[in-house]
Amino acid sequence: MNVRIGKRVQHFRTVTFDASTNRVQLIEQRLLPHRFEIIGTNDFRETALAIKDMIVRGAGAIGATAAYGLAQGARAFGGTDLRKFDRHVDVVFETLKAARPTAVDPVNAMLQVRADMKSGQSVKEQQSLALAAAEDFADEDAQHCREIGEHGAKLIRNGARVLTHCNAGWLAFVDYGSVTAPMYAAQERGKKFHVFCDETRPRSQGATLTAWELAQQGISHDIIADNAAGFLMSRGEIDLVIVGSDRTLGRTGEVANKIGTYTKAVLANRHGIPFYVAIPLSTIDWNIKSGRIIPIEERHEDEVLGAWGTTRAGKREYVRVANPASHARNPGFDVTPAGLITGIITPKGIFRPKELWKNRATLQS
Amino acid sequence: MNVRIGKRVQHFRTVTFDASTNRVQLIEQRLLPHRFEIIGTNDFRETALAIKDMIVRGAGAIGATAAYGLAQGARAFGGTDLRKFDRHVDVVFETLKAARPTAVDPVNAMLQVRADMKSGQSVKEQQSLALAAAEDFADEDAQHCREIGEHGAKLIRNGARVLTHCNAGWLAFVDYGSVTAPMYAAQERGKKFHVFCDETRPRSQGATLTAWELAQQGISHDIIADNAAGFLMSRGEIDLVIVGSDRTLGRTGEVANKIGTYTKAVLANRHGIPFYVAIPLSTIDWNIKSGRIIPIEERHEDEVLGAWGTTRAGKREYVRVANPASHARNPGFDVTPAGLITGIITPKGIFRPKELWKNRATLQS
Repeated sequence: MNVRIGKRVQHFRTVTFDASTNRVQLIEQRLLPHRFEIIGTNDFRETALAIKDMIVRGAGAIGATAAYGLAQGARAFGGTDLRKFDRHVDVVFETLKAARPTAVDPVNAMLQVRADMKSGQSVKEQQSLALAAAEDFADEDAQHCREIGEHGAKLIRNGARVLTHCNAGWLAFVDYGSVTAPMYAAQERGKKFHVFCDETRPRSQGATLTAWELAQQGISHDIIADNAAGFLMSRGEIDLVIVGSDRTLGRTGEVANKIGTYTKAVLANRHGIPFYVAIPLSTIDWNIKSGRIIPIEERHEDEVLGAWGTTRAGKREYVRVANPASHARNPGFDVTPAGLITGIITPKGIFRPKELWKNRATLQS
Repeated sequence: MNVRIGKRVQHFRTVTFDASTNRVQLIEQRLLPHRFEIIGTNDFRETALAIKDMIVRGAGAIGATAAYGLAQGARAFGGTDLRKFDRHVDVVFETLKAARPTAVDPVNAMLQVRADMKSGQSVKEQQSLALAAAEDFADEDAQHCREIGEHGAKLIRNGARVLTHCNAGWLAFVDYGSVTAPMYAAQERGKKFHVFCDETRPRSQGATLTAWELAQQGISHDIIADNAAGFLMSRGEIDLVIVGSDRTLGRTGEVANKIGTYTKAVLANRHGIPFYVAIPLSTIDWNIKSGRIIPIEERHEDEVLGAWGTTRAGKREYVRVANPASHARNPGFDVTPAGLITGIITPKGIFRPKELWKNRATLQS
């Protein structure tokens, strides 16, 4: 999407590949929203490190980074012996996989690249197939987000005031994002609307990443404290809520997402405001039978007890806000029941949460 | 209430008077929770400044401070001419009133002191009546909070997990507080319970002041992000909610309080969790006919866009958290309808919100 650099507006993806130098190019997301920088990794080990150190984050974005990393590693092989090449690619695969061992997207992306390489008769052929497959993976990720945008844009009326929570924007994917895609598509169609970004304590991804994306794109928005959404709804100032999902239960329509999502759904329900969840198909879990049994990660209490920001002198600092002798509970996610969700926006269309299961043939294809 | 200084536990009020030095003594609340310090004001002008600069805040606390300040000013008068003395007391009154021009408590407190002075036949007599009246005012404020505690303590069962929002603790009054009074009274009765303190963004009074109070008192507690309360309720981890009130509508039972209060009430209602509001009688507004017409203050956006805290080097700093190019909406209060409130805890007992009006004779006495 767009990034304003000085007076120019340039288009970027979160991850791209420079074939001439064999480098994976990434937005250094840890510097956002305070600085925009592109870094290039010189080899697959640096690419793995970029995933591990969260220079790049978000399901789609780390999937594409791993796909490019595999191609990068494969292309760095010098010989012509296919068996040696295979063993080398195994090492590349395992190194990239180990960078974020619990994430499923990098592994799926790399398996797709390896499958595509198989038809190559020589090292050279396989190397060029690897790069083509990685490019395909990134293009598909962007295309799926674009499709989410096409379907979701219809929900954003001209003049609408949209609430969102956390960041499921293009920074988490290759381009467009999931929650933000309908906004970008509505903007393309010339609609005017206003977005309220929940701050999203404790990690403040709404105030930092979502607000940054919308500002770059020139979309009208305000950050609000998480406490303020209920008040705005009670005064008729919110028309629509769109949030993302970390895990969508295909069998029940429940949605596990960033802590606070459930609260917004309860409030929207009370006020009769449509509540939508925008997802790529990869977040659908077709196996688990109830949101009750999803383990909810308790994160480090320091996130709640203070905040990261920039001092007036321009230095990045963590400040302790809370009483020094006190402790915090910090559940990272919550589960929103299907009954509070108006619809789920996917690349294949918008579904009622309870209808995911009967449409599973479409959604699994 | 209690403050731990080194290994000792000492009892403090937010404001007291030292007759021997004619000084008003105040907890320097701007340093909390990071440092505990008592300051003394040398004359009524310094006392007015302490109110203006928010060294002391909270309805009851600034009322008592103004009452003491009026006595302090009266006692500093040197002559015996009653007419000159009266004019001097007028200046003291106006100076203290101007320190927080929109607050009603300082004025009410000082009118009470002046009324009590009237029966004195000499400057000296009036001076000592002024001090006695100020002490009475402070004692009454503490007594009313204690009565809120007596009534409210019954609601806290042994083993209860109580959620609160913002700070309506003893720091806002002379002693005990409103929301915290039932907790302190329950503790005195030997009950064990756990308190979840909402962080209360954007100003974080829950994470700073309420957590500090509870820690000093040795009450088990955890700070949570405002986003986490709904999740804890959904998992059955909250039994009771108690919040404060800035303005309670005697005619409708609606409650205007810190932004986020309404959200907690909606969540508690969904989960069938009792939701109580603890108030001193001075917050009841018997005139206004609907919460809809209460003007909601929009506060400065910097509160939402960043946070105040202590750096690792021990320095107090404001850090900007949000995207630099973005703005914020910052409504300071919201209104909770009577239908979401289980009961209102007052010094005169616990009332259903809709029953305030028919009990107005009791509540106005």
